[in-house]
Amino acid sequence: MADTRTPEPAAKPAARTPDTTRRSERSRRAIYDAALSLVGEVGYPKTTIEGIAARAGVGKQTIYRWWPSKAAVLLEAFLDLGERAAEAAGAGGDYEIPDTGDLAADLKTVLRATVDELVDPQYEAPSRALTAAGIVDPVLGAEFVEKLLEPSLQLYVKRLRAAQEAGDVRPDLDPRVALELLVAPLAHRWLLRTLPLTHAYADAVVDCALGGLTPR
Amino acid sequence: MADTRTPEPAAKPAARTPDTTRRSERSRRAIYDAALSLVGEVGYPKTTIEGIAARAGVGKQTIYRWWPSKAAVLLEAFLDLGERAAEAAGAGGDYEIPDTGDLAADLKTVLRATVDELVDPQYEAPSRALTAAGIVDPVLGAEFVEKLLEPSLQLYVKRLRAAQEAGDVRPDLDPRVALELLVAPLAHRWLLRTLPLTHAYADAVVDCALGGLTPR
Repeated sequence: MADTRTPEPAAKPAARTPDTTRRSERSRRAIYDAALSLVGEVGYPKTTIEGIAARAGVGKQTIYRWWPSKAAVLLEAFLDLGERAAEAAGAGGDYEIPDTGDLAADLKTVLRATVDELVDPQYEAPSRALTAAGIVDPVLGAEFVEKLLEPSLQLYVKRLRAAQEAGDVRPDLDPRVALELLVAPLAHRWLLRTLPLTHAYADAVVDCALGGLTPR
Repeated sequence: MADTRTPEPAAKPAARTPDTTRRSERSRRAIYDAALSLVGEVGYPKTTIEGIAARAGVGKQTIYRWWPSKAAVLLEAFLDLGERAAEAAGAGGDYEIPDTGDLAADLKTVLRATVDELVDPQYEAPSRALTAAGIVDPVLGAEFVEKLLEPSLQLYVKRLRAAQEAGDVRPDLDPRVALELLVAPLAHRWLLRTLPLTHAYADAVVDCALGGLTPR
């Protein structure tokens, strides 16, 4: 399967032997790791292409050849993390929300996993830095939403549509709106640090959203 | 009613005539306005006490005497905005979520007003800048939550408790958790700019949260 996002050196296509590919792959991952660690340490505004290049042990021209901006490097670094996680989970590079027929259980599974990802100390700082940068920079924010966020939200749309077909979700609801009652409370606690972000909270959000606030 | 947050000059208490008070009040508001406009224009990291003082037409020692940091100035600027809005609305400085007996209508009223505040072009930029700064700075974030966010969230706790007493909200729900299904989706759309933040969306969130996702 061709990975259309793999950066290709602009020059010397004839030299693209397996060895070169492995070297490129190593450089690409080194650049991602450097970008993630740097932005976690010094914040997004102070992270530079030069700094990423120095830490990754590549020339800055290598980065400029493959990516138009540091935002593009960081976004791809997070996309790559997601892919690696999916590969490690044996999902063949594609995440799906499980469909065991028990909607509450499936949503709790995925929201608990989301909690674990959000509080992972290895990635929390760069993830916060990128999100905060997107909040004040509409162009970066739009890229963040289009490439990283919306594809993951569409997994909820798919699962909620299946639940509607199974009669487990009200047919009049727009799944794209309904999913926000599930994911936004977790994002809110994570971003603003109002109260602890725990599995118990993920479960409470699912129960509250499915059952509704008014008595049955 | 004494406003305990009104900054008092440290020196010359004997000179505190009505004229001085008015001058202090004018300086205080000028400093708030300068802080809000500056952080909206250049962002939080590049906003300095010196810059705020210059724009407000006061000496920087005036600011240092009244506030310990630029974060403190900004937070009080937003608190002051809320107070001014409450005064203008004739609420005597205290906001409350209305209780007409119609929970859905009351929540739609307050969430529509929240939408209007969030997209107000005069304050959107500084509000985003302050929120983003708090996301990457835990100390500032905690101050933001304690002074600005949590007090407004407690208004929902109060209204939802009244609704529980009236039998309109399930008695087993924790209002502090339930309210997040109402406010977090709006914050999510506003911060991340996923989809339009409109009154229709506020209404949909209320209907979805009250009724729940599963069929009745």
